[in-house]
Amino acid sequence: MNLLDALRWRYATKKYDPSKKVDQKLVDQIIDAAWLAPTSSGLQPFKVIEITNQDLKNKIVPIAGNQHQIADASHLLVFAAWDTYTEQRIDRIYGYIAHERGQSPDIYKDYTDMLKSTYLNRPAQPKDEPLPMEGFNNFDHAAHQAYIAFAMSIAMAAELKVDTTPMEGFDNKVLDELLNLKEQGLKSVVMLPLGYRDSANDWLMSLKKVRHPKDEFLIEIK
Amino acid sequence: MNLLDALRWRYATKKYDPSKKVDQKLVDQIIDAAWLAPTSSGLQPFKVIEITNQDLKNKIVPIAGNQHQIADASHLLVFAAWDTYTEQRIDRIYGYIAHERGQSPDIYKDYTDMLKSTYLNRPAQPKDEPLPMEGFNNFDHAAHQAYIAFAMSIAMAAELKVDTTPMEGFDNKVLDELLNLKEQGLKSVVMLPLGYRDSANDWLMSLKKVRHPKDEFLIEIK
Repeated sequence: MNLLDALRWRYATKKYDPSKKVDQKLVDQIIDAAWLAPTSSGLQPFKVIEITNQDLKNKIVPIAGNQHQIADASHLLVFAAWDTYTEQRIDRIYGYIAHERGQSPDIYKDYTDMLKSTYLNRPAQPKDEPLPMEGFNNFDHAAHQAYIAFAMSIAMAAELKVDTTPMEGFDNKVLDELLNLKEQGLKSVVMLPLGYRDSANDWLMSLKKVRHPKDEFLIEIK
Repeated sequence: MNLLDALRWRYATKKYDPSKKVDQKLVDQIIDAAWLAPTSSGLQPFKVIEITNQDLKNKIVPIAGNQHQIADASHLLVFAAWDTYTEQRIDRIYGYIAHERGQSPDIYKDYTDMLKSTYLNRPAQPKDEPLPMEGFNNFDHAAHQAYIAFAMSIAMAAELKVDTTPMEGFDNKVLDELLNLKEQGLKSVVMLPLGYRDSANDWLMSLKKVRHPKDEFLIEIK
């Protein structure tokens, strides 16, 4: 399905049919879309956690304002960003890029030095400054990249006619603890349940999708 | 083109052919993808600014670290988020949603009251607190939604074989002044030049796309 048709088709599913599981081949494509997403300087500063364990999904429901979609959906993807950029993380990906491109290991030294001089001098956590460029912090920057990947997964799922519910409203600190993310240098950003709508019981499904009038959304400068 | 194939095809274009213009019908689809993107509570807290004016594009080049793609690309999209959430903005979109759905104007009163009690009590600007949920601020939250739309435009362009260069690295304050965004209650977040690659002169075009090994990117919990 064309992306525009897919975006018109999708909606934030409110009720899943727990008996319908998403084929793993489709889930793999939804994760691949996130994996292929563009990120700032190609650093790809996040991971995707794919959860099918029912007990764990049940435990996440109360952490996310009792959104029962998490329990009823067949898969839950959690997008977790790096807590900060580090020398090791920058070297790891650029060493791997050079390796995969059959290049000399030091070909990206000037570039990674530049990245390090930017990121290693920025705070890991948000400061009381407008975003960006001054006062920019590493976790927020990494989280932005995770949002791009999150959107790619939403788009891919819609093209495959897999239902999703983009979710921000959860207690990130509690979820990070439950998933041991701190130990992995990660912090949760957004979640995406995947499944199939329960057409008989989803109140939102049949309501018209509404966006701001196009002439309020778009400003043209010719 | 399938989204995964499109994402494999695309890359951050380094050199555009200034003689090749993107057909406006394709640009409209790229903007429609942003317009249809899902956003938190459907508030759609951003606008897209479509710039074809060559003088203005030229002026933006030095604001963005002399990235000449901005001048050479045929169109420049600027994604600008609401500087904060306000009662008027929340009422405007929910009034419009009710109107478009043929519902009573007050059907969303409880919901918008809840939204207002959340957003109107949050600072407009980042504070010295981890993101989210405590210390969360309205501009960052709106900017996150703009990132989702930004990704949808990148995906749509790739499906249409239109080249793009996702861009964060620019001086937002100077750009906001140039585009009079403050007066409109907006702040720039990201930019997206659209055009066609100059195949003979783009050093990145033929290099292999590399992502973290899948087993480092994905964590499965079964």
